[in-house]
Amino acid sequence: MSRFLSKSALAVKPYTPGEQPRERKYIKLNTNENPYPPPPSVLAAVSGIRTGDYRLYPDPTSSDFRAAIAEKYSVEPEQVFAGCGSDEVLAFAFMAFFDRGDRVYFPDVTYGFYKVYAELFGLMAIEIPLKSDYTVDISDYFGLHGHIFIANPNAPTGICLPLCDIERILQENPDRLVVVDEAYIDFSGEESGVTLIDKYDNLLIVQTFSKSRSLAGIRLGMGFGNAKLIAALERIKFSFSPYNIDRTASAAGIASVKEEHYALKTIDAVIKTRERTVKTLRLKGYEILPSGANFIFLKGGAGGAEIFGYLKENGVLVRHFDAPLIKDFVRITIGTDEEMDVLIKTLEELS
Amino acid sequence: MSRFLSKSALAVKPYTPGEQPRERKYIKLNTNENPYPPPPSVLAAVSGIRTGDYRLYPDPTSSDFRAAIAEKYSVEPEQVFAGCGSDEVLAFAFMAFFDRGDRVYFPDVTYGFYKVYAELFGLMAIEIPLKSDYTVDISDYFGLHGHIFIANPNAPTGICLPLCDIERILQENPDRLVVVDEAYIDFSGEESGVTLIDKYDNLLIVQTFSKSRSLAGIRLGMGFGNAKLIAALERIKFSFSPYNIDRTASAAGIASVKEEHYALKTIDAVIKTRERTVKTLRLKGYEILPSGANFIFLKGGAGGAEIFGYLKENGVLVRHFDAPLIKDFVRITIGTDEEMDVLIKTLEELS
Repeated sequence: MSRFLSKSALAVKPYTPGEQPRERKYIKLNTNENPYPPPPSVLAAVSGIRTGDYRLYPDPTSSDFRAAIAEKYSVEPEQVFAGCGSDEVLAFAFMAFFDRGDRVYFPDVTYGFYKVYAELFGLMAIEIPLKSDYTVDISDYFGLHGHIFIANPNAPTGICLPLCDIERILQENPDRLVVVDEAYIDFSGEESGVTLIDKYDNLLIVQTFSKSRSLAGIRLGMGFGNAKLIAALERIKFSFSPYNIDRTASAAGIASVKEEHYALKTIDAVIKTRERTVKTLRLKGYEILPSGANFIFLKGGAGGAEIFGYLKENGVLVRHFDAPLIKDFVRITIGTDEEMDVLIKTLEELS
Repeated sequence: MSRFLSKSALAVKPYTPGEQPRERKYIKLNTNENPYPPPPSVLAAVSGIRTGDYRLYPDPTSSDFRAAIAEKYSVEPEQVFAGCGSDEVLAFAFMAFFDRGDRVYFPDVTYGFYKVYAELFGLMAIEIPLKSDYTVDISDYFGLHGHIFIANPNAPTGICLPLCDIERILQENPDRLVVVDEAYIDFSGEESGVTLIDKYDNLLIVQTFSKSRSLAGIRLGMGFGNAKLIAALERIKFSFSPYNIDRTASAAGIASVKEEHYALKTIDAVIKTRERTVKTLRLKGYEILPSGANFIFLKGGAGGAEIFGYLKENGVLVRHFDAPLIKDFVRITIGTDEEMDVLIKTLEELS
């Protein structure tokens, strides 16, 4: 440890991202990437950036990208924030809206980064237990004494709340910020909370290009909220990293949004594969939580660590979280039909 | 203003980046970009990323990029940090090494972002006056009661310290972190402090691909320091934005480093143009500080705001800082010879 380490740096337990194996010998179902590549137009857009443009800083206001997003989601550009992945949007939200010592609430089983940010920025993280069936009881989130993070669908359970439940939480906490992390919403069949941003000034929606849009390699995320909330995020961005969206990310994002039919097709394929996989594995005796995401959370006869180890040994990489409440489960990203067939066959050999 | 704005967000006065005019009608000498494009191999590397790779997260350890940098600079990969532009490296350094209330020292005329970060993270910023000739008196930096930021060459003056002066500051503050921001070092003819990182565990060097490597559009910066310092930065990165270097930036950076001769050629061209421009404009009566950067800091008969306005009106965009100590100056990026000829001609018409 460096003798110069700050107290915040010492206090934080960093996030552990899923392995990115370099040798590519695995069927990679561990980091919720899309099994399908982005449309060719995305690559064409990136390759089409003029040589001379690389030497110039990108537009610090990301105005073309925000305009494209605003048009697709029927909101105003001033209601859109562009981040370097949804993680940056979340991190900037912590800096823009919370003070040291503030309370921030989220489920005890959810995206691990909320707790990391809370530690990094000196907040008091309060984890609200899920019910025994791993669902969120929304009444636990009424009248809280701090701000709220809800991943919808939740991770790594995959369980989704309907929009009316999100709206109840907003109504019951009118003076608290409610951040709804919709990284996986496109796979859920539920309506996004983006439609509520005009109605609730305490709502920040976070989305990403990493999952449904097959662009995890490019780092692009979005925040949606009323113009004042977005202006606060911009204030942090211009105090931290004004050129956060580079030229390639902007070009890729705009091209992606223009190919809505392509994204819908891959989303549909992932959902179909998920439903087939769930059905097959349940018939084989596995417990799988109801998923509205591009992954499933699965429990079997063997423990989570054993299933993880066995699958890895046999060339299938999934994710296991060594946390008491969920240690019996593994999280499995939905791959192609062929990849899931291998997964199913390998799990059969285990049991 | 959002009613949810945090105290930090309220306290900070965000950085104002130079204009990025969208219509391209200016000779753009305002944000210290390189007038020459990156080598074609950089674009080939970006265009060569396989479609399927975009769907996958980048390597969170940026190991290929760090290995390439380590080889070029004759250091170990563990001594290299990769950031989304040098701004991110600086921001992470504030989080990794400083606590709220700590003192941080820097010159009263320097890169504006140090003060922004100090405000954002609740530090006490202490600005040390430059001498009347706009140079740094290194003895002002001996035995300080806080950490130190030195831009070398300094911005926006362009004035450079020799490495022996940097070493004196390190020796006189053995228990303070000294961050040396070498964004412009490649244009200075001075040796980089990277050669000192094995000797001083309190030295962090920050560099960027945005200036000498013509890649401002891609967002890539580096930190160099002893392995423990770099591990502390990694700790923040994995608590903030683990996938901060995307696939295009990594590919571009590696390709750029491999074309050392190309970078040296453009650096040489920029220096030659700078020297010619300085000589010509001094003969015409302009005062220009001695520059080791890819810009010059110029003062003339008219005030800085007037020169800025006149040049802009005539299609040449430069930068003016409305701060008491430097309001008489404009900062002019070194462009191509042709661009500087237009600048010189336009300035002639002013006087």
